[in-house]
Amino acid sequence: MMTTIRPVTNADHQAVLDIVAPVFAAGETYALDRDMSLQQVADFWFMPRHQVFVATEADRLTGSFYLMANQGGGGAHVANCGFVTAADSQGKGVARAMCEYAMKEATRQGFRAMQFNHVVSTNDRAVRLWKSLGFEIVGTLPQAFNHPRLGFVDSYVMFRKLL
Amino acid sequence: MMTTIRPVTNADHQAVLDIVAPVFAAGETYALDRDMSLQQVADFWFMPRHQVFVATEADRLTGSFYLMANQGGGGAHVANCGFVTAADSQGKGVARAMCEYAMKEATRQGFRAMQFNHVVSTNDRAVRLWKSLGFEIVGTLPQAFNHPRLGFVDSYVMFRKLL
Repeated sequence: MMTTIRPVTNADHQAVLDIVAPVFAAGETYALDRDMSLQQVADFWFMPRHQVFVATEADRLTGSFYLMANQGGGGAHVANCGFVTAADSQGKGVARAMCEYAMKEATRQGFRAMQFNHVVSTNDRAVRLWKSLGFEIVGTLPQAFNHPRLGFVDSYVMFRKLL
Repeated sequence: MMTTIRPVTNADHQAVLDIVAPVFAAGETYALDRDMSLQQVADFWFMPRHQVFVATEADRLTGSFYLMANQGGGGAHVANCGFVTAADSQGKGVARAMCEYAMKEATRQGFRAMQFNHVVSTNDRAVRLWKSLGFEIVGTLPQAFNHPRLGFVDSYVMFRKLL
């Protein structure tokens, strides 16, 4: 099946929340409060400075990501993203397709690099995927993440140039 | 002269802005928009999740800093701070006193570590000071900061355990 990426529309909001909320609640990959209400999840994912996109496969939503400037001022040329793949669409290249689209779109918008601030080191699938897409681990945050099953584990700062 | 640190009060707000706004406008150390209005500076510095403190010397304000959780959820045990010293109080140990207070206060509140996400590598004074206070450079963000005079320069992620 083909993955298509496009900007989110209002009609997608509930389907996006259905994908994102369980990932935040699981608390294994995002450093966000696990007990956020659906409204808080929506306020975060759709915050004004997030440009939100969705991945679809035959009109079904399979993932979503946001693109934003990681910092303001002198740091505004570095993009940041957050990606979530639907539980039943793991392992099908959805995250790869989203990240490839994100890098292209960020480049088009003039960003010169992309940075992920907090990749949980035990999230092997993500670490491997970002590496395969040209990201490097440029920093290790010692025991910066309290994993619900594994306890305190390192997190990585991952970075790649876009130009 | 003795530096005293205490939580900010409403009566301090204008004096704090007088110290912070020129540093943001200079754009050499904070990755924040340089053309923020005073109201935007206030909205940032006094945002609800910032605990704001001030440094004083003989009742004159010499600096201010905020303390916050750097992330939510599994990352909420790592503190983050931002420090600004008044232009005419540089080199007098004000930033050192503020950071020592911040580490003590963060520890008291249960934080286990402190992280600075974006220390501009050309900010020698800050890098040296944080190192002398036990922070290590755990990551280097290549050319992540566009310095108004020096162009693209690296930024550092600095980190230290508090326990």
